[in-house]
Amino acid sequence: MRFLSAFLFGNALTNAADRFLPPWKFVGTVWPQPQSMVVKEDYQILDANIQFILTPDSPQCDIIPDVFQRYQALIRSHFKSAGSSKKLKFSSSPAGVIDTIEVKIVNCENHPSQTMNESYTLQVGSPSSEKVELTAMAEWGVIHGLETLTQMIHDIDYRPSINSTMITDWPRFPFRGFLIDTSRHYLPVSVIKAQITAMSWNKYNVLHWHIVDLESFPYQSQVLPELSFLGAYTPLHVYTINEIKDIIEFARLRGVRVVPEFDTPGHTDSWGPGAGPKFLTPCYTNGQPDGTRGPINPIHQENYDLMRKLFTEVNQVFSDSYLHLGGDEVPFGCWKSNPDITDYMTKHNLTTYAQIEQVWVQGMVDIAHDLKKNYVVWEEVFVNGVKISNETVVEVWKGRSGTWKDTMNAVTKSGHKAILASPWYLNLISYGVDWEGYYSIEPTDFNGTNAQYELVMGGSAAMWGEYVDGTNILPRIWPRASAVAERLWSDKSVNSAPAARWRLNEWRCKMLARGLPAEPELHNPNIDPNYGYCPTPFDPFNNAHFLF
Amino acid sequence: MRFLSAFLFGNALTNAADRFLPPWKFVGTVWPQPQSMVVKEDYQILDANIQFILTPDSPQCDIIPDVFQRYQALIRSHFKSAGSSKKLKFSSSPAGVIDTIEVKIVNCENHPSQTMNESYTLQVGSPSSEKVELTAMAEWGVIHGLETLTQMIHDIDYRPSINSTMITDWPRFPFRGFLIDTSRHYLPVSVIKAQITAMSWNKYNVLHWHIVDLESFPYQSQVLPELSFLGAYTPLHVYTINEIKDIIEFARLRGVRVVPEFDTPGHTDSWGPGAGPKFLTPCYTNGQPDGTRGPINPIHQENYDLMRKLFTEVNQVFSDSYLHLGGDEVPFGCWKSNPDITDYMTKHNLTTYAQIEQVWVQGMVDIAHDLKKNYVVWEEVFVNGVKISNETVVEVWKGRSGTWKDTMNAVTKSGHKAILASPWYLNLISYGVDWEGYYSIEPTDFNGTNAQYELVMGGSAAMWGEYVDGTNILPRIWPRASAVAERLWSDKSVNSAPAARWRLNEWRCKMLARGLPAEPELHNPNIDPNYGYCPTPFDPFNNAHFLF
Repeated sequence: MRFLSAFLFGNALTNAADRFLPPWKFVGTVWPQPQSMVVKEDYQILDANIQFILTPDSPQCDIIPDVFQRYQALIRSHFKSAGSSKKLKFSSSPAGVIDTIEVKIVNCENHPSQTMNESYTLQVGSPSSEKVELTAMAEWGVIHGLETLTQMIHDIDYRPSINSTMITDWPRFPFRGFLIDTSRHYLPVSVIKAQITAMSWNKYNVLHWHIVDLESFPYQSQVLPELSFLGAYTPLHVYTINEIKDIIEFARLRGVRVVPEFDTPGHTDSWGPGAGPKFLTPCYTNGQPDGTRGPINPIHQENYDLMRKLFTEVNQVFSDSYLHLGGDEVPFGCWKSNPDITDYMTKHNLTTYAQIEQVWVQGMVDIAHDLKKNYVVWEEVFVNGVKISNETVVEVWKGRSGTWKDTMNAVTKSGHKAILASPWYLNLISYGVDWEGYYSIEPTDFNGTNAQYELVMGGSAAMWGEYVDGTNILPRIWPRASAVAERLWSDKSVNSAPAARWRLNEWRCKMLARGLPAEPELHNPNIDPNYGYCPTPFDPFNNAHFLF
Repeated sequence: MRFLSAFLFGNALTNAADRFLPPWKFVGTVWPQPQSMVVKEDYQILDANIQFILTPDSPQCDIIPDVFQRYQALIRSHFKSAGSSKKLKFSSSPAGVIDTIEVKIVNCENHPSQTMNESYTLQVGSPSSEKVELTAMAEWGVIHGLETLTQMIHDIDYRPSINSTMITDWPRFPFRGFLIDTSRHYLPVSVIKAQITAMSWNKYNVLHWHIVDLESFPYQSQVLPELSFLGAYTPLHVYTINEIKDIIEFARLRGVRVVPEFDTPGHTDSWGPGAGPKFLTPCYTNGQPDGTRGPINPIHQENYDLMRKLFTEVNQVFSDSYLHLGGDEVPFGCWKSNPDITDYMTKHNLTTYAQIEQVWVQGMVDIAHDLKKNYVVWEEVFVNGVKISNETVVEVWKGRSGTWKDTMNAVTKSGHKAILASPWYLNLISYGVDWEGYYSIEPTDFNGTNAQYELVMGGSAAMWGEYVDGTNILPRIWPRASAVAERLWSDKSVNSAPAARWRLNEWRCKMLARGLPAEPELHNPNIDPNYGYCPTPFDPFNNAHFLF
């Protein structure tokens, strides 16, 4: 039925090339939606040999050659898929041919950071129809602007074209994170890079790397090699410092920060074998050690020394100014059972286990402070009443049903910066469409003052690793994570899922065309068959297009 | 902790190669579990140049050279991963070196079928320690026997070895199906082949190809080219007859039948444009055609003629003796609204809409009968009281909560053969482990007589296509479908999920090593970290191992 409106049945087989036009095609929408975007009807066609030039007054930021090379390759890839070999009548006339993208940068920042300037303006078709003008405060805006520009390409009369457009764009939140977990399951470096690539396309800017946890310790330390030696699954399931540095540089070239999390004092079973016999608390049953181990033992100075040694190295490896100190789900039972802990508490006038937790956390904060690192902690550290400094950033992850709002209120009321993660645990899959739920979340939708709302640094989506590894993580993340990306980048008013649906569908298909296996979980195709396909089927066994 | 029991901490860094032995390794278990399997402690090591020979008295079945080539390559692949370059002390002595697999076949069947003989016996270490003896009634048992043998390979002292073993094996059910749906989303031929390959490894023997549905019509008919021309998503989203024949031959070489489903009279919207204006029933509102279309119009002879033309071609393309006629979810509302249908019913003394449904189904059955095809229908055809012949096989798909048992009882009580699908809709995903639920289903667990139980032909798992395509279908199917595979192949008594868990974990890792992206959804790794990895991490971007 859907085809009959477009084509005459009787003439169906006379001209296959024309008749097989799909009922929808790319129209050049952008994801996430820019803050301000005015699209005109007239358009320019692209020259296949489009050049990227930097204005003479721009500084030479070191990532720019790589950025230009990537986007030049990506833009050129549009010419392979277009059916350009045919002589075609044009249904309208282009206003010009774009042969140059002129980029102006005000200032190089060199490393992405919490204060990175990601804003840009983009002019297509004006003042000149031969060149695109992209102006960015720093190199990160160049990446975002070129990404936006590339998404705007769509075929008109089989020729890659871009409508005349004026964009002014900047992120709503400075922290747009995505958590991966390499402890429950190891992820190959190639998959982490693909994830960073897709994050950059979606204008995410922080990879929250939950690198170790109770199941395994894949971080291969040089100063404490026993940790991964005895804590990784196997020697194939580790990240060397060189691999990590390579990943961080890869991310930097894409405007993405890498914030590592070394979660303590709970979630640390895998540290135990390599950290020595005093590291984890021996648990007692009926007054006797029962052979099991609990959280890190906070009463031994050696354990703080070990952490200082580790974090001193981590500080050199991970260049970002932030470190995630964890602090979630610390079980108090083992500490309670252990007479040495009880003695210590008595001796130091500690009456609650939150206080002994605070002893440990304070130790970690002191180390971070000495290393001049800022730090993030999970909400329990705050909720348990551990005394933390004002600079501590609190990540809210509980209360998916809505009580996260109370926590966001409490955290920001106390003057702490907050990151919202609760509603965006993408690992919690269900049957059918769920991106609309993620899309509908508003991080400032809690009782609070404007001053409190300004303490909302942003949010973080998460794909915890219990049930994902290299086999399935990328299609499980994308395009669901794109919904969160738009929430964190675009204006608060861009919040209608029905309005976003077509645009997200187009964006998924573009990601597919670039080689990312983004799954088709967008819409029940029973309702609209047009969601059932992208222009080219994705073949995982013949996927040479992935642009790292 | 888990490493400490195996290794002395103090000596941790002296000999990395030895110390990094993973805490678990392949032990040569088989999935699905053979009917009878006796494994001894002594073992043979494998010669890297192992030869496959057919006994002189065996007939030359045409698929055998391909089968031998595939399994020779697969067995040889075990030698790449073993760390064989080192001089190692042997912890025990092998009983011999296997250099030959001697295969005896009683009879060639050439095409897999409902009555195919899949049984085999396998002897390793006896009577000769130099050769494996595999005896099969037909070529299908050779495939299954070599698959079993290959799974039994495990490294002892870094050398691929097999324990002395005696196996007698046959399938519990003759119909072990898996449904794929290429209408909601198109699947590339490569993905369908990968699916067939994995099915063969898991001893599935029927690909139920739900090839068209309301969303799109990718079957490219030569006699009715308009159907896909106007009903497929795009010209890239079709299967040509040559591609289909290639897939069927690919499946035959792996002992897998391909049973196509052309579902009628409902689920046919995508047929409408190409089948002509009389094909779908015009629906009426307030006595006037409202522009929408319902199921196939059963009152026009042209529609039966079209189906006969189509099925005559389908019969030539799909060599299997079975055809799936569909018949599910026929909505009666549109038929009820249409005055021509009402006239027809009055004229023919039809008083219920099940009777008009029966008119159509009878037409399809007559065509199938004329083409000498057996046929399967979805349960509604039976449940609605459509009069069907005794040879009709009924596929039960409703009542996941347990009422499928009543339907299985009713179907078999009436003398029809039954296929159970209800509890195995793998498309209905949820968070966490679900294979244990699929594994626990017993297809004969309904009130009935032994004669009724013998009418249970088997079962079929399904991955309907609403939310899957080439990006995510393989990891979503595997290893969850392996649970169903064992239920349908192995003895009824093999039904303990806790006992199967380790074996399934080993099997998933073997599938990974062969290049199949089988996801890690087996067990919460918080409970046992050993489920968190396979010996080699799976890298989707460096996966050259896939053995088609």
